[in-house]
Amino acid sequence: MSKHEIAVIPGDGIGNEVVPAALDVLNTVAEVHGGITFEFTNFPWNCDYYLKHGQMMPEDGLNTLQSFEAIFLGAVGDPAKVADHISLWGLLIKIRREFEQVINIRPAKFINGIVSPLTNPNDFDLIVVRENSEGEYSEVGGRIHKGEDQIAIQNAIFTRKGTERAIRYAFELAAKRRGHVTSATKSNGIFHSMPFWDEVFTETSRDYPETRTSSYHIDALAAFFVTKPHIFDVIVASNLFGDILTDIGAAIMGSIGIAPAANINLNGKYPSMFEPVHGSAPDICGRGIANPTGQIWTAKMMLDHLGQQELGQKVLTAMEETILSGIKTPDIGGNASTKEMTEDICRRLKK
Amino acid sequence: MSKHEIAVIPGDGIGNEVVPAALDVLNTVAEVHGGITFEFTNFPWNCDYYLKHGQMMPEDGLNTLQSFEAIFLGAVGDPAKVADHISLWGLLIKIRREFEQVINIRPAKFINGIVSPLTNPNDFDLIVVRENSEGEYSEVGGRIHKGEDQIAIQNAIFTRKGTERAIRYAFELAAKRRGHVTSATKSNGIFHSMPFWDEVFTETSRDYPETRTSSYHIDALAAFFVTKPHIFDVIVASNLFGDILTDIGAAIMGSIGIAPAANINLNGKYPSMFEPVHGSAPDICGRGIANPTGQIWTAKMMLDHLGQQELGQKVLTAMEETILSGIKTPDIGGNASTKEMTEDICRRLKK
Ligand SMILES: CC(C)[C@H](C(=O)O)[C@@H](O)C(=O)O
Ligand SMILES: CC(C)[C@H](C(=O)O)[C@@H](O)C(=O)O
Repeated sequence: MSKHEIAVIPGDGIGNEVVPAALDVLNTVAEVHGGITFEFTNFPWNCDYYLKHGQMMPEDGLNTLQSFEAIFLGAVGDPAKVADHISLWGLLIKIRREFEQVINIRPAKFINGIVSPLTNPNDFDLIVVRENSEGEYSEVGGRIHKGEDQIAIQNAIFTRKGTERAIRYAFELAAKRRGHVTSATKSNGIFHSMPFWDEVFTETSRDYPETRTSSYHIDALAAFFVTKPHIFDVIVASNLFGDILTDIGAAIMGSIGIAPAANINLNGKYPSMFEPVHGSAPDICGRGIANPTGQIWTAKMMLDHLGQQELGQKVLTAMEETILSGIKTPDIGGNASTKEMTEDICRRLKK
Repeated sequence: MSKHEIAVIPGDGIGNEVVPAALDVLNTVAEVHGGITFEFTNFPWNCDYYLKHGQMMPEDGLNTLQSFEAIFLGAVGDPAKVADHISLWGLLIKIRREFEQVINIRPAKFINGIVSPLTNPNDFDLIVVRENSEGEYSEVGGRIHKGEDQIAIQNAIFTRKGTERAIRYAFELAAKRRGHVTSATKSNGIFHSMPFWDEVFTETSRDYPETRTSSYHIDALAAFFVTKPHIFDVIVASNLFGDILTDIGAAIMGSIGIAPAANINLNGKYPSMFEPVHGSAPDICGRGIANPTGQIWTAKMMLDHLGQQELGQKVLTAMEETILSGIKTPDIGGNASTKEMTEDICRRLKK
C-alpha cells in the first residue's frame, strides 16, 4: 500500500473548478486500485490571498510545501486583482525556482474526438521539454531614467549547466520514444544566448549518436507546429520558446483546456509540481463549463511521476474514451459541464 | 513621369529566383502604366560574397545604398556556408539598424484559392506591426567562463522611444482600418521589459480613445493566431514576438512563401527596405518552384511606399486572381513553376 501526500493549490479562477474534478479522478483511481491512497492538503494561495496578506503565500509557504511528495496546482493569476508579474513570480515561478523544478514537460498529441483547428492534424504526438529555471525568465534587469528617456533592460541568462540539463533530458526522453530531438533556436536574430544554445545542443548530441536531430529557428518552428506537427517527436526549448510552443501545441490539439504539464525537480531535493498549461480563465469562471481534462491529464503525469504509470495510462484512456463518446465541454465542441465530463471519466475508471 | 531608383539585393538561395520574378512584375507595371519607371541596380551581397571577401557587403556598402529611394531584398542566409548570426547581422539586420528602419509591417490575410492548414480560416485580415530596431535582438551581452561553467547573457533593451514609436504606428494604422489594436506582451513571465511594454501601451492608447485595445501574452496570442485569427486587426509586437507571430501568420495563410514585409524608415533620412518573410530555402533552390508571391506582394508594399497605392492594389489583385485560377507553385497546392506563376500575373496586369 503506497500513500502519497500531495499539496494542492487550486489557485485562481477555474483552478477552483478543475482541481476538485481532477482530485475526484485521483480518488476514484485510489478507490478502484486499492493499493494506493492519497492525502490531499489544500492551500488557498491565490490573488485573493494576496489582496488580504500582501503576498501570494505565507512567509513559510515553501517550508510547508517542502514536506509533500508532490504539488498539484490549478492556475495562478487574475490581472483584475493583482498584476500578473506579481502573482506569478510570487507563487508559480517562485515554486518552480526555489524547488529547482528545472524541467517542464509538456506533451501534445492528436486526441480523437476533439475538433481540431487543423485541416489535417495528422496524428501528431510530441513532447516539449522546456527549460524551466532560467533563460528569458529572469529577475535580472531593471530600468534607468524616467518618462521619455526611460529604458528597460531585461537579461536573459543561459548557463551551460541549465541548458545542457534540459537538452540532455530531451535526448534521454527521445531514446524511449521515436529517437528524434528538435532544438528550438533563434541564433540568427538573438545574438549571444542562442548561438550558445546551439553549441550546447551540438555538443550534447554527440553523446547520443543514435538520435536524429534537427534545429529550427523559433519562428519557423512555430509555423511548423501548425503546418506539419507530425514531424516532431521531442522538442527542447528555452523557457520562453517552450512557453510559446506549448500554447500552440494546445491550440492544435483543439483547446488550451486540454494541455498538461509537469515541473520536474531532478535532484530529488524538492517536490515536483503538476499544473496544466491553461490559465485561470476568469472569463468563464463560475459557469461550470471549464474543461477539466488539462487538469486530469496533469494528474496522469503526476501518477507517472509517483511511479504509477499503469494507473496513469488508465486515466488517459478513460479521458480519451469520454471525449470520443461526445461527453465534452463547449471548448472542444460539446455541451457537457465540468461535472458531467469528470463523472463520465470516473465511471469509466470504475468499470 | 516618376522615376524610382531601387537597390536590389537578391541575397541567397531562392532570393535569386523570386527577386527577378518580382522585378518582372514591377517592369510590367511600369510598362502598362506609362507614368512610372524603375531603375534597378543589383548588388550581389550574400553568403558567397562573404566567403570571398570576409564580409557580407563592402565597407562602403551602406553609403552606396544610401542614395537609393528603396531597397528590394530577397533573402539572406545559408547556414551551410556562413553561420546565420554572422550573415544576418552583417547584412539584413545591419541595414535595418543603420538605416533606422524601426518598423516592420507584415500583413497576413486569407487568400482565396490557397489551401489553408486551418479548418476554418474565417477570412482573417491582420497586420503585425513589429518593432524592428531593438528589444530582444541586441548585440549587448556576452559570455563569461568556459566549458561547464560558461554562462551566456543576452540583454533585451526596450527604450521608451522605440516602444512608443511602434505602438503609435500601430494605432495610426488601426485608425485607417478596423480600429482595433492588440498588444503582444509576456509581462507575466518576462519581468522587466514586458511590464514596461504594457505601461507604454496603456499610456499611448490614451491618445486614441476611439481605438479598441486588447492585450494578450504571446503564448496565448500565438495560439489565437491558430484558433481565431479573425479577431485581430492590427497587432503590435516586439522584435522577437513580431518575428514569431508573422511566421504563424504566414503558416495560416497556407505558406511561408506568400508573406510580405516592409522595413520602414520613418524619419526620411534613409531608404526603407522591402523583403518577404520567408528565408533563402536552400532545400528547394535551383528547382524553379519557389513561390514568387511573397516577393511580389512585397513589391506591392514597395509600390505603396513609393506613393503608387493604385498600382500596388493592381499587383495584389492580379496575384490573387492568378492564385484563384489555380496557377500556383507546389507549396500552395499547385504544380506551376515560379516562371509560370509570374508570367500569369504579368499577363493579367497587361489586360
Ligand atoms: C533572418 C532573421 C534574422 C529574421 C528576423 O528574425 O528578423 C527573419 O526571421 C525575419 O523575420 O525577417
Ligand atoms: C503564467 C506564466 C508565467 C506561465 C509561463 O509563462 O511560464 C504560463 O504561461 C505557463 O506556461 O506555465
